[in-house]
Amino acid sequence: MSQRILGIDPGIGITGYGIIDREGNQCTPVVYGVIRTLSGNPEGERLCALSDGLIQLIEEYRPEVAAVERLFFSRNVTTGIAVAQARGVILLELARAAIPCMEYTPNQVKQGVTGSGRAGKAQVQEMVCRLLGIVAFKGPDDAADALAVAMTYSPGMGIVSSSL
Amino acid sequence: MSQRILGIDPGIGITGYGIIDREGNQCTPVVYGVIRTLSGNPEGERLCALSDGLIQLIEEYRPEVAAVERLFFSRNVTTGIAVAQARGVILLELARAAIPCMEYTPNQVKQGVTGSGRAGKAQVQEMVCRLLGIVAFKGPDDAADALAVAMTYSPGMGIVSSSL
Repeated sequence: MSQRILGIDPGIGITGYGIIDREGNQCTPVVYGVIRTLSGNPEGERLCALSDGLIQLIEEYRPEVAAVERLFFSRNVTTGIAVAQARGVILLELARAAIPCMEYTPNQVKQGVTGSGRAGKAQVQEMVCRLLGIVAFKGPDDAADALAVAMTYSPGMGIVSSSL
Repeated sequence: MSQRILGIDPGIGITGYGIIDREGNQCTPVVYGVIRTLSGNPEGERLCALSDGLIQLIEEYRPEVAAVERLFFSRNVTTGIAVAQARGVILLELARAAIPCMEYTPNQVKQGVTGSGRAGKAQVQEMVCRLLGIVAFKGPDDAADALAVAMTYSPGMGIVSSSL
């Protein structure tokens, strides 16, 4: 029996998504892409657009579980706040749809897909394509990242989305 | 003609809210309090509880505009992410309800209510009570802060909630 997993790489301008079906060790891609919001629009409207896109995706593909990349605050705190706000909306809509959610750090995702937490973006994307049998990947990096997040999902591993 | 203003002090555990009616320079308190979420619950459920509380408040009191305190990232980045996620949900629900929203920094709020951006919490609360004619303030600090945010609201002043 296969399980449908939604992976999400959160962002305010671009949120990557990737849905896979997994049966045992076998993963099959279902759909992948990005939800974009317009940079000129007020924050609230952008968050609405993100929410609408995600709700549509959930209604169309009915994922059973979700995996969301954890925020890694590094350089830009202002961008970090905007991404965290987007992430709040994503966690809200997953909870409203009663989809259990796990969280993974960027390093866990790299480790999960390539075997190394230090792998570069190109290596992650190559392994995503190889493991999913995608010959020519069409889409932004964020979509590949989201597929990697979905592939990292494991009920026994990762951080259960919890309160702080 | 008076204007009904909703002020919000965002948080994941406690979100303060304060609604006032303003006519010219005269402010009247309508309702104030906090929306609490349970710290043991998963993040998504807490964000749902916050969203539900805010939607109920908006439906009951029909504010025309909103003022939300801007995040000030200081000590704890982990707490900061949680608050930003809550703030994302708040901006989403305000936008869904088509309520125009302005943002103010903590210093702008202190300045707006006491005349000094360096005022302490006690001074802010005292001025909130004096200006609103509240004899005995009953509620947590977060509710007083939210009333101060609402009183700071001015269409010509502050940061229009915008994209980054």
